Amino acid sequence: MLAAALGGGLASLASAHAAEGMWTLDNLPRTALQQQYGFAPDQAWVDHAMQASVRLAGGCSGSFVSPDGLVLTNAHCVVGCVQGLSSAQRDLQNDGFVARTRGEELQCPAEELNVLREITDVTGRIAGATDGRSGQAFIEARNAEKGRIESECVGDAAATTRCDVVELYNGGRQHLYRYHRYSDVRMVFTPEYDIGFFGGDPDNFNFPRYNLDAALLRAYENGEPAQVANHFRLEPAGAEPGELVMVTGHPGRTQRQLTVAQLETVRDATLINTLLWLAERRAMLGEYGRRDPEAARQAQSDLTFTDNSYKVVRGQLQALLDPAVFAGKREEQARLRARADAAPWDAVAAVQPLARELAVPYMLLEQGRGFDSRLFSIARTLLRAGDERAKPSDARLPEYQDAGQGRLRQTLMSSAPLYPEFEIAKLTWSLTKLRELLGTDDPVVGQVLGARSPAQVAKALVEGTRLADVAERERLWAGGAAAVSASDDPLLRLARAIDAPARAVRARQESEVAAVESRAAQQIAKARFDTLGTTVYPDATFTLRLSYGDVAGWQEGGREIPPFTEIGGLYARATGAKPYALTPRWLEAEGTVDKTTRFNFVSTNDIIGGNSGSPVINRDARVVGLAFDGNIHSLGGNFWYDPRLNRTVSVHSAAIVEALKSVYAADTLVEELLAE
Amino acid sequence: MLAAALGGGLASLASAHAAEGMWTLDNLPRTALQQQYGFAPDQAWVDHAMQASVRLAGGCSGSFVSPDGLVLTNAHCVVGCVQGLSSAQRDLQNDGFVARTRGEELQCPAEELNVLREITDVTGRIAGATDGRSGQAFIEARNAEKGRIESECVGDAAATTRCDVVELYNGGRQHLYRYHRYSDVRMVFTPEYDIGFFGGDPDNFNFPRYNLDAALLRAYENGEPAQVANHFRLEPAGAEPGELVMVTGHPGRTQRQLTVAQLETVRDATLINTLLWLAERRAMLGEYGRRDPEAARQAQSDLTFTDNSYKVVRGQLQALLDPAVFAGKREEQARLRARADAAPWDAVAAVQPLARELAVPYMLLEQGRGFDSRLFSIARTLLRAGDERAKPSDARLPEYQDAGQGRLRQTLMSSAPLYPEFEIAKLTWSLTKLRELLGTDDPVVGQVLGARSPAQVAKALVEGTRLADVAERERLWAGGAAAVSASDDPLLRLARAIDAPARAVRARQESEVAAVESRAAQQIAKARFDTLGTTVYPDATFTLRLSYGDVAGWQEGGREIPPFTEIGGLYARATGAKPYALTPRWLEAEGTVDKTTRFNFVSTNDIIGGNSGSPVINRDARVVGLAFDGNIHSLGGNFWYDPRLNRTVSVHSAAIVEALKSVYAADTLVEELLAE
Repeated sequence: MLAAALGGGLASLASAHAAEGMWTLDNLPRTALQQQYGFAPDQAWVDHAMQASVRLAGGCSGSFVSPDGLVLTNAHCVVGCVQGLSSAQRDLQNDGFVARTRGEELQCPAEELNVLREITDVTGRIAGATDGRSGQAFIEARNAEKGRIESECVGDAAATTRCDVVELYNGGRQHLYRYHRYSDVRMVFTPEYDIGFFGGDPDNFNFPRYNLDAALLRAYENGEPAQVANHFRLEPAGAEPGELVMVTGHPGRTQRQLTVAQLETVRDATLINTLLWLAERRAMLGEYGRRDPEAARQAQSDLTFTDNSYKVVRGQLQALLDPAVFAGKREEQARLRARADAAPWDAVAAVQPLARELAVPYMLLEQGRGFDSRLFSIARTLLRAGDERAKPSDARLPEYQDAGQGRLRQTLMSSAPLYPEFEIAKLTWSLTKLRELLGTDDPVVGQVLGARSPAQVAKALVEGTRLADVAERERLWAGGAAAVSASDDPLLRLARAIDAPARAVRARQESEVAAVESRAAQQIAKARFDTLGTTVYPDATFTLRLSYGDVAGWQEGGREIPPFTEIGGLYARATGAKPYALTPRWLEAEGTVDKTTRFNFVSTNDIIGGNSGSPVINRDARVVGLAFDGNIHSLGGNFWYDPRLNRTVSVHSAAIVEALKSVYAADTLVEELLAE
Repeated sequence: MLAAALGGGLASLASAHAAEGMWTLDNLPRTALQQQYGFAPDQAWVDHAMQASVRLAGGCSGSFVSPDGLVLTNAHCVVGCVQGLSSAQRDLQNDGFVARTRGEELQCPAEELNVLREITDVTGRIAGATDGRSGQAFIEARNAEKGRIESECVGDAAATTRCDVVELYNGGRQHLYRYHRYSDVRMVFTPEYDIGFFGGDPDNFNFPRYNLDAALLRAYENGEPAQVANHFRLEPAGAEPGELVMVTGHPGRTQRQLTVAQLETVRDATLINTLLWLAERRAMLGEYGRRDPEAARQAQSDLTFTDNSYKVVRGQLQALLDPAVFAGKREEQARLRARADAAPWDAVAAVQPLARELAVPYMLLEQGRGFDSRLFSIARTLLRAGDERAKPSDARLPEYQDAGQGRLRQTLMSSAPLYPEFEIAKLTWSLTKLRELLGTDDPVVGQVLGARSPAQVAKALVEGTRLADVAERERLWAGGAAAVSASDDPLLRLARAIDAPARAVRARQESEVAAVESRAAQQIAKARFDTLGTTVYPDATFTLRLSYGDVAGWQEGGREIPPFTEIGGLYARATGAKPYALTPRWLEAEGTVDKTTRFNFVSTNDIIGGNSGSPVINRDARVVGLAFDGNIHSLGGNFWYDPRLNRTVSVHSAAIVEALKSVYAADTLVEELLAE
């Protein structure tokens, strides 16, 4: 079972139609679709699916569901917007929100939607620019060429165009993805947190489930609802067990092609360090939130995000602790290696000790986890933007090149409220971790803390900075490096103090580890192509993919898990206490809502984090569901797909309609969704 | 290097005299001591060392340092007593305490000292009672026979005698340890937390160090200071580099003899689960303590304990993630197995899947971590004491047999204050973990939470219970099972509700895992004896051991770590901010204290948790130091001893005298310590 799954081919085991793969839309598994389901999508079908699928730049998926730019996604995907629009006085997150008219739709402080327009192969151009280089020179040449390609692609349309060069097959192919970019995005509907995330952390990644994890946004252009040529229509009848369903969305990252040596680093260094970090962060946030209801509200989205990440990483670690997984990976690697030059595998193994050594400093300094706060991230961005924008675009760090200026500025200038007490709490805690993990005698720690405690430093920074003020950020952005240098803002000074060591650890990681791994991955990908051709799909890269499968439960511990739940089950599971509390709206609707409506369902689609909010469509390209989760067995999906147990969890299309109609009285939205 | 160390023999590598081993006092490594140091202790020396060494029943070591029952141990070992004597009004933990006269000495709420009087081999008696039995029958027969032996040994002197049957060599030998028991223990001196634990968690397990981790207790009998025939005299001159020093103390537990299969379970299940638990607990306690200074004071000792455990377990996990360690263990096991019957190794491997399965429920239900609070532990003890004391002593759970009634009752009736808010916080958090780890649909979780949230249940339990009142506990203890059953105390009801499932998981763990492992360990121990004889020492069992070594620094990253620090270094390292803040007393004494006094030092002794507070003595049986920590490399000592890097960290005898004299003006105590 494992070896077949690892080989990248199709495994026809317990579930007849279970199908591994996150396929790019220019390389669909047509043979398998034809053979297993008698389905042969034409180019028009594919183009339509591509243009109707939406990416939320923050890390989610969605789809257009009306010609007027209405976007269906998950409630948990719009939490940033919802927090940004909320305050102690107006709590959209817990109360939910329905715009009764378009005039009531609220602009998100920083939300960006991308719709894929075109894929171009630029493998040759990148190869030409990097040929014969290695280490830092390779990284710089590659980044510069990528930057040039992206800038040419964006041209002078930065406000509406986004272009990303994407490494597929671990560097085996380089594709240019050109997106239409929407930066005026408004909130149309979001449910109360307690129904969007009913069951909370305990039920997360579990099934049966009863979540209305659905939200509606609307893309605007020039102050008017965007008119879109392609959208998916909602099909409230849903799909029956065994019926073909496809997910078009943006899986974030998988690591199915890593070598055994890399997987050992992931298991023994990356995952454990990350997991311990997340474990402490969730407990810190949870205890902070128990101070009072307002503290709980402030911490809620960070806590939800951290709980979710914790569970994901815990599941991944558990998967890698299974000796059978490593045995399977070893076997596959040995097979491939026997037919190819062993050098790339050896090169990867040789840099693992350094990869392990750099893992913690990279996390603390360059990822900024040692300075856990939104204010620090603003300071870091302003500082680096000043320094980097003084250089030609193609010589900058990739995230500061011209092509990305629009989204960078948008995030930076977000008007979402900042809570000083909460910022101090997170910063205090993370500075404590910085000192713990690097050691009191580390020079960076000495520079940051001096003779003060983490709590004293955090308080002084948050109370002393003026970066909570958007106008001050605008001033520093406009003034560039000179304005940033002239400022005595304590957070900017901190960001400056740690910038050299942070860049140094990043440079080592990129030139001495990533460059070696990337080069080797290209060679390994080539060896894999030579053997398997394009019957393999690339690891996930937060780009548009199609996964196919069918509606199906699974067997566990001798029990049969049925594929559907119904709204009635929600009322049965509710206890009155969070996270199993029904909201007033749902309590009130108990007599009128149709309890036999299907609520959530599972299917065999192969998805992963980033796919949240993806439409689940049938062969007529109608939305039958809204993917929002995987079952607990899907967490190993980072490393391989297990057709017996790995399941996608979705909100049923019927539940979306029934809830909007009978619970939220959002008849206008229902009409828009169901219009033919 | 590794193989030699693992083999149990002496490794003479970088440090010429480095010596592995935690030796029982009836089997000292006389040849090695003679050959390496020309030291041949006679029986009188050994008897004296045994009678002058003290065990703190809570999990530490100490020693008599005057004929009037004065006991030297670590400040961190008396934290339970100090917390018990403190309140919001009287903060002994942060302010320290010096009894200027014997009349000022304060009785600890629940402290027990043990002094070893006699060791008797009872291997044959246990073997006779368990012969031919397996599983639950084996466990019951063994526990019953142990109970009978201990009861006979204690006789009617439970107040002053403690007897424990100890499994040595993983069950290869069974020895009866008879102790004199002191239950009236009084606080004589404890320093301020900030100097006892200077450097706090960041410096814990590191060196150089500057900690006055020293405290003085006094054993009382019949209301008077105990007169003891054996004590160690303090030698303020200390020991020079390379000089032989011995530690007589009570290492708690090592796992150096586990099979490879067991070590894999430890690595992949036990340590990771425990570590994640501790990570969350320390973050929760830390954030609770940031509410206000009183909350910080309440959480302080739990936090210190949790931080310390976290670091220990993190170090242990890191050690087991080193592939070289497993390679060494595999090699040693293969060698031994090749010369013996393979059956015991196979039997151990066969029960590991069950061991992994039971790990989490055992931790939550039987260890009670799902109900993290002192009040729950009181309720559990009262409930089980009622049920168990109704049976004949030798049919009870071991911890409720007659021999241990004295200490059980003493702990239960401790008058140490309970803080409702803090109890609620810990209980809320741990009930959340219970639900997370067992799942919402687990029947025990359903029984505990019902339709309420963890926070609601915790609040109701803590506010509804009457067990904070010692008189109520006395009533329930006296009334036994009938009184407990008749009570409607919500915590007793909770303890009752989960008692059957907790006992069930314990029974499975004991009969299906531990019994198999224990039997196999006996066979493996025999195989090891047949090969190596008694040149091996048993794994640590919180019984008296002697470790020998010498004062020596080590090399790390090309740097030489010198073996001593001086008091001057404390002032240099102090920043004014916790955990690097000096206390008023130490600031005031800066002009008068002799800064050239040696403060802390390292030696090659092989010790582990439980050894805290052990005297470090020279060949004249004089105290030259007080062990309180290991360096970071000592954490792998749970699994093997690394002579190049593993070091014991101690307070120098000179620093104890200088501090008592120049900082605490405790001249009477100094006189008592130095009297010839």
